[in-house]
Amino acid sequence: MTVSGDIRPVEWLGDRIRILDQTALPAEERYLELRDPKEVARAIRDLAVRGAPLLGIVAGYGMALAAERSAEKGDDALAQDLDRAAARLARSRPTAVNVAWAVRRVSAAAEAAAAGGPEAVRRAVVGEAVAIHREDQAACLAIGEFGAELLPSDANVMTHCNTGSLATGGIGTAQGVIVTAHQAGKRIHVWVNETRPVLQGARLTAWELQRLGLPLTLIADGAAATFMAGRSIDAVVVGADRIAANGDVANKVGTYALAVLADHHRVPFYVAAPVSTIDPNTPTGAEVIIERRNPGEVTEPFGVRIAPEGTRAINPAFDITPGRLITAIITDRGVVRRPFSAGLRRAMAGEPAPTGPGRAATP
Amino acid sequence: MTVSGDIRPVEWLGDRIRILDQTALPAEERYLELRDPKEVARAIRDLAVRGAPLLGIVAGYGMALAAERSAEKGDDALAQDLDRAAARLARSRPTAVNVAWAVRRVSAAAEAAAAGGPEAVRRAVVGEAVAIHREDQAACLAIGEFGAELLPSDANVMTHCNTGSLATGGIGTAQGVIVTAHQAGKRIHVWVNETRPVLQGARLTAWELQRLGLPLTLIADGAAATFMAGRSIDAVVVGADRIAANGDVANKVGTYALAVLADHHRVPFYVAAPVSTIDPNTPTGAEVIIERRNPGEVTEPFGVRIAPEGTRAINPAFDITPGRLITAIITDRGVVRRPFSAGLRRAMAGEPAPTGPGRAATP
Repeated sequence: MTVSGDIRPVEWLGDRIRILDQTALPAEERYLELRDPKEVARAIRDLAVRGAPLLGIVAGYGMALAAERSAEKGDDALAQDLDRAAARLARSRPTAVNVAWAVRRVSAAAEAAAAGGPEAVRRAVVGEAVAIHREDQAACLAIGEFGAELLPSDANVMTHCNTGSLATGGIGTAQGVIVTAHQAGKRIHVWVNETRPVLQGARLTAWELQRLGLPLTLIADGAAATFMAGRSIDAVVVGADRIAANGDVANKVGTYALAVLADHHRVPFYVAAPVSTIDPNTPTGAEVIIERRNPGEVTEPFGVRIAPEGTRAINPAFDITPGRLITAIITDRGVVRRPFSAGLRRAMAGEPAPTGPGRAATP
Repeated sequence: MTVSGDIRPVEWLGDRIRILDQTALPAEERYLELRDPKEVARAIRDLAVRGAPLLGIVAGYGMALAAERSAEKGDDALAQDLDRAAARLARSRPTAVNVAWAVRRVSAAAEAAAAGGPEAVRRAVVGEAVAIHREDQAACLAIGEFGAELLPSDANVMTHCNTGSLATGGIGTAQGVIVTAHQAGKRIHVWVNETRPVLQGARLTAWELQRLGLPLTLIADGAAATFMAGRSIDAVVVGADRIAANGDVANKVGTYALAVLADHHRVPFYVAAPVSTIDPNTPTGAEVIIERRNPGEVTEPFGVRIAPEGTRAINPAFDITPGRLITAIITDRGVVRRPFSAGLRRAMAGEPAPTGPGRAATP
């Protein structure tokens, strides 16, 4: 995919997958080859792959590897091997809904093909995993098209965390919007928040944008407000880890602060995510359980101890942005505006959003 | 000063000063001895000493060292050496008003003593530098007393950067408020923002609070909003590098975002600083020149490269918080509330602030 600067975070090679080890970036472009679900689960747990859509894709391929490996052992082992892989992958990052979603989807394809015998199941499993990947690529392109129209022709866009090729199977979600606008000839400059504690902005987004030839400026998270006050920011675009039915958004910690700041400075605040990120079973953001990660990410980042020994730290990985602070949610099925409950339902059902004043056209 | 956990960021030793090298904290408690204004200016520029009040104290001692050094060269050199030192020190950190203020104050003392001859000038210069240090210790105690009354008896207080003994000659400004409340028997828990890029919160404030036995929780800057939304924060208290005549405050980058967030969540937002921080010649925050520091503090903190080579970064050291977002300014001469212009003028003139509803008593 030259459109994404030829970044391939995951490739299916028939009997193995090749992933870009994101923990080594930006210092080193190192690839890992994974041959079974156990290796895939470990790569997910260790953050070698990350980003909600990409986690789903890789988990799907983990199931495909289970099916391929099983062929060596004889057909009897297949169903059991798929079940074992499903359980193992689902445990790898329990809060990432995309992992469970992809595993369920591939398992369902396996069941549907069961009557055709083991070889049919294997083909169905691999086919479904590849389909998840292809669909995500298409979803990114659609999000990019819908979102790019919302950006001015000369735009300073702020983003947070990493939502690019390294987080998806395609050009990205929020970053896909930015990249599509850039490739459509708009003059885009990106303000990248470094995104403490794991610094996905500094490490991954800066690396991707550089490869794509997009001008960027990296800042500490605490400086974002300064540039909004200085009228340097025309829009904020971020991704989402989960979108509740009412439009509340769970995303990387720091997102909620940006939304409050954007509201204060009257800067449009957009969330970009495929409809698969919408969780109709989560009524509001209040029901989302926020994963707290290792405090060491705060006190001792990258092996450098910055806080004194014994310092207590809390490290919430995500935060909740209430829908009322969000200007619009850019999905692969169109731009959803308030009231979000109805709009998100329509988007999930595949109905086009109504057009007209205050609403984006959805071709 | 046992009250400050016996932290001595600067000591006057007659022919040199001994400073605690704050860049080495918390890993190492390393001291530097500085013998002339050039070494002092370098220590200021390199952040070995930092914090607005402490910068004033150290700059005053820088002038004292110029006077002492000059004695070796003969009396003729004195006035010129003091002028050269004043210029050098004033250039070292342009945003901090305290450096220029201390240099002016010592220079004025030198001029007043000029008729008495070089030895009288030297004594006046050293005496004035020592007086600045002592007065700051007293100012911290007064700020602490005034501010502690504003905190509830059971309070979760958020702070940013470092405003403790390491930033002042005494118990600190914002941290002095926290420490005084704690020592008065209030149940205080401190939420410490790590304060990227230089991480003064993680490195220095956590270190000081630990020594003082104050319970604290360290968080990434981007997580502050989450804890405000969760009603975990009763008050925000920060310091100031410069206070404009209208109450706009220049302080460590990230402060302005906190003020917007506190306003959004209806959390009281206090600024604590001695009246010497008020600059009547700066009408509003718009006139403050914001120092931009080395982008390497963002891209390559503590020698660890986190962003790819060639990444453009902007690193403003400070930001401006408009007075309208500030609940009150806690000075050594009482608590100033809106309208700030009149209140700050009164505080500078040494008049007590009026008491009554909406205003703090100023004994």
